[in-house]
Amino acid sequence: MPTYADLSTEELEALKAELEQTYAEIKARGLKLNMARGKPAQAQLDLSMPMLESVTTLKDCTAQDGTDCRNYGVLDGLPEAKALMATMLDDEPENVIVFGNASLNIMYDTLARIWMFGTQGEKPWGQLDTVKWICPAPGYDRHFGITEEFGIEMITVPMNEDGPDMDEVERLVAADPSIKGIWCVPTYSNPGGVTYSDEVVRRLASMQTAAPDFRIFWDNAYCVHHLFDNPQEQDHVLDIAKASAEAGNPNRPLKFASTSKVTFPGAGISALAASPENVAEIKKRMGVQTIGHDKLNQMRHVYFLQDAQGIRNHMAKHAAILRPKFELVVEKLNDGLTEVDGCSWSNPRGGYFISFNGPDGTAKRVVELAKEAGVTMTGAGATYPYKKDPHDANIRIAPTLPPLEELDAAMDVFVTCVKLAAVEKLLEKTK
Amino acid sequence: MPTYADLSTEELEALKAELEQTYAEIKARGLKLNMARGKPAQAQLDLSMPMLESVTTLKDCTAQDGTDCRNYGVLDGLPEAKALMATMLDDEPENVIVFGNASLNIMYDTLARIWMFGTQGEKPWGQLDTVKWICPAPGYDRHFGITEEFGIEMITVPMNEDGPDMDEVERLVAADPSIKGIWCVPTYSNPGGVTYSDEVVRRLASMQTAAPDFRIFWDNAYCVHHLFDNPQEQDHVLDIAKASAEAGNPNRPLKFASTSKVTFPGAGISALAASPENVAEIKKRMGVQTIGHDKLNQMRHVYFLQDAQGIRNHMAKHAAILRPKFELVVEKLNDGLTEVDGCSWSNPRGGYFISFNGPDGTAKRVVELAKEAGVTMTGAGATYPYKKDPHDANIRIAPTLPPLEELDAAMDVFVTCVKLAAVEKLLEKTK
Repeated sequence: MPTYADLSTEELEALKAELEQTYAEIKARGLKLNMARGKPAQAQLDLSMPMLESVTTLKDCTAQDGTDCRNYGVLDGLPEAKALMATMLDDEPENVIVFGNASLNIMYDTLARIWMFGTQGEKPWGQLDTVKWICPAPGYDRHFGITEEFGIEMITVPMNEDGPDMDEVERLVAADPSIKGIWCVPTYSNPGGVTYSDEVVRRLASMQTAAPDFRIFWDNAYCVHHLFDNPQEQDHVLDIAKASAEAGNPNRPLKFASTSKVTFPGAGISALAASPENVAEIKKRMGVQTIGHDKLNQMRHVYFLQDAQGIRNHMAKHAAILRPKFELVVEKLNDGLTEVDGCSWSNPRGGYFISFNGPDGTAKRVVELAKEAGVTMTGAGATYPYKKDPHDANIRIAPTLPPLEELDAAMDVFVTCVKLAAVEKLLEKTK
Repeated sequence: MPTYADLSTEELEALKAELEQTYAEIKARGLKLNMARGKPAQAQLDLSMPMLESVTTLKDCTAQDGTDCRNYGVLDGLPEAKALMATMLDDEPENVIVFGNASLNIMYDTLARIWMFGTQGEKPWGQLDTVKWICPAPGYDRHFGITEEFGIEMITVPMNEDGPDMDEVERLVAADPSIKGIWCVPTYSNPGGVTYSDEVVRRLASMQTAAPDFRIFWDNAYCVHHLFDNPQEQDHVLDIAKASAEAGNPNRPLKFASTSKVTFPGAGISALAASPENVAEIKKRMGVQTIGHDKLNQMRHVYFLQDAQGIRNHMAKHAAILRPKFELVVEKLNDGLTEVDGCSWSNPRGGYFISFNGPDGTAKRVVELAKEAGVTMTGAGATYPYKKDPHDANIRIAPTLPPLEELDAAMDVFVTCVKLAAVEKLLEKTK
C-alpha cells in the first residue's frame, strides 16, 4: 500500500485540501472532548460507591486492635490498612507506612525530607551545589514537575520495551555522585505501558552508584491495573525491594502506591514501602509533620477492598469498562494511520495510557489542531523533562475518562489531525 | 489560713509521711488514667456520627459547581468548603485554601516551603546561616517540635494575660533580621487559655521587623471552641489579617484552622487563609505536591456543619460535655491546693487545656509521681522550647479525654502529687 511518502507534491497538496475540508467539518461540530489526563470514568467511580456506606457506626470506626479511628493517633497507619496496602506494594506490612490521599504527595514529601535533612546520615541534597536525576522518558509529567521544582537537573534516558535503557543508566550513575535518584513507573508505565523486565529490575537494584544515597522512586501506580483478567495476560513486575536487599542495597528503593485509580482519586489512601532503616527514619521525621492520616478512610478501604483477592475482583470490574476503550483507540489508530509514515503506538495490557509517536516535528501541531477542534490532549512535550520532547513526536493518549461514544468521536478528530500535521510536515520539506 | 510555708520542719516531715501514705493508697489502686493530650472524649466524637452518613450517593458527591468530588482535581478546595472554613478563619473564601486532615501538616509544609524556596522573592530560609523564631511560652509542644526539627533557634518570650509580652517581641524582631517568625495560638491558647487582646494583635500586625519576610503562624486552633454559649462569655480575637493589611503588612500573617476538634481528629479538614499574594504563591507550589485534597471529606463537612451558625450549634454540644470537666478540674485545684504556696492555674473560657503552675522546681516531680500512680500527664517542660521549662513549674492539664468520674479520680491523684512534691521541695531547702 502506498504511503504519504510515496506522494508527489501535487498529490500532497490535494490530500491537504481534502484533510482541511474534513477538519473544518469536524471543527464546525463544536465538540468538547477530553483525552488529557488519566482520570477514571464516571462508570468506574460508580463501582466504589458502596465504600461510602461502609463506615457509619462506632463498630465500623473501631480497628481490630481497638483503636477508635475517629480520634487522634496512629502515625503510620492502622495494621489492617498496612496489610491491605502491603499487597499492592508487594511487601510486608511492617515495611509499609500509610499516608493521605495521594502517592504524589508522599513522593514530594519524601524528596523534600531528604532535600532538607538528608537520608541515612548523608548530606541534605539541598546543601549540594548540584543534584541530578535520571528521568526515563517518555514518562510522567508530574514526576518531572517535582524534580524541576527542586531545581534538580533532569537527565533524560530512553525508555525501551523492557524499561529504561540500563546501559545508559548504569553508565551515568556509576560516574556521577550528584545523580541522586531515578523516577520509575515499573508496571504499565506512564505513558508507554511498559512493564520493567526482571533483568532491568535486577540491574537497577544492583548497579554501582557513585552516590551512596542514590534512591529509586518506584511509583507502582498501576500495579493492579490490568486490562485483562487472565493472569497470563497480566504483567507483574519483580519486587525491587527484594532485589535491592539481595544486591546489598536495601535502602535504595522507595516504593509508592495508592488506591486513587482503585476507589476514588482524591479520596483514596496511599502508602510507601521501604527498608526498615528507611521506614524508621521517615516515621521519626513525619511524626513532626503530622499526628496521623485519615484512619476512617483507611477503614473504608479495608472494609471495601478487604485483601488482595478483593482488589483483584474489584479491578476486574474496572478492566471491563476500560478494555473496550483501549481496544477502540488502537483500532482507530490501526485503521486510520496505515498510510502515514513514522507513526507508532503502544498496545498496553494495563495502566491508563497509550503512548503515540507521530512523525518527528508534528506532536505540537497535532495537539494544537485537536484543541482547536474541541479535543483536549495532554500537552505535547509533557512526557519529557522540561516539557521538551527532542523529536516533538510523542503524545500521551488518555482514553479512560470519555464514554465510549465520545472517545470514538475524539479519536476520529485525533487521526485527522495526525494526518493533516503529517502532510503539512511533508510539504514543508518540499519547500 | 496557714500554708505549707508556715510549717516547721517537723510539721513538714509529718505532713510528708501523711501524704506518702495517701499516695501509696492511690498507687495501690492500679489506676490507668490519661490527661496528657488534647483529645476529644468519646461522647464528643459521637456528636459527629451523622456526618459519616452524609455522602453516599452521586448527588451527595456532586459539588454546587457540578464537580464530581470522587474524581481528581480542585487543588485549593471546593468553593463551599472554602466558604465554610472562611467562617472559622474569619476571612474571605477567596483567601482560603482547604487542605487535608490536619492544620499541623499545613504549618509544617508552609514552613518547609519557605525553607526550601523562600517567600515573596526573599532568600530561602534554609540557605541562611541562622534562623530564629519567637516562641511565646508556655505554648504548644508540636509547634516547638517543628521549629526544632528545622534547626531553628527558638527564643522564648513570656505569655502574659493578654498574649505574648509585646515589649519583648517588638524589641527582638526589630533588632534581628534572622528572626523569621512567631508561633501564635491566639484564641484560648495552648495551654494557658489566653486570648490575645486587640492591642496585642495590632502590635503584632504593625511592629517593625528587621526581616522583610517575617511571618506570623497564626494557629487559631480553638477559634470556635468556647466553653460557654453566652456570646459575652466567649472570646473572639481580632483578625490579624485585617490588622496586618491596615498596617501595610498584608503578607505577614498565615492563618490556620481545622475541624479536628469540631468533627473528628484525624478525619477532619484543615485550611489556611492568607493574603492574595501568599495564596497565589502557595497554590503555585502546592500544585507540584498534590493534585488536590479529599473533596468527599470536604463535602461531608459542608453537609454536616453547613455554616457559621451550624458550627456554633455543634460546638455548643461539645461545650456541654466539656464545661463540667473544666469546672471539676478548677474546683479540685481550688479545694485541694489552698495551703500550697506558689500554685496558680488558668480558668479558661474555651480551648482544651488548663495551665497549671506549681512551686518552682516541682513540675517534673509531680508528673513523675502521677505517672507512677497511673495518671499520665503531658511531660513537664513540654510547654517550653526544647522541653526546658526554666522554672520547672508548668504542667499542662488536658481534661477532655477522660469521662467525668475518671477525671475526678485523676485530679485527686494530681493534687496529692502536687502537695507531696511541694513538701519534698520545702524539706529540701531546709537541708
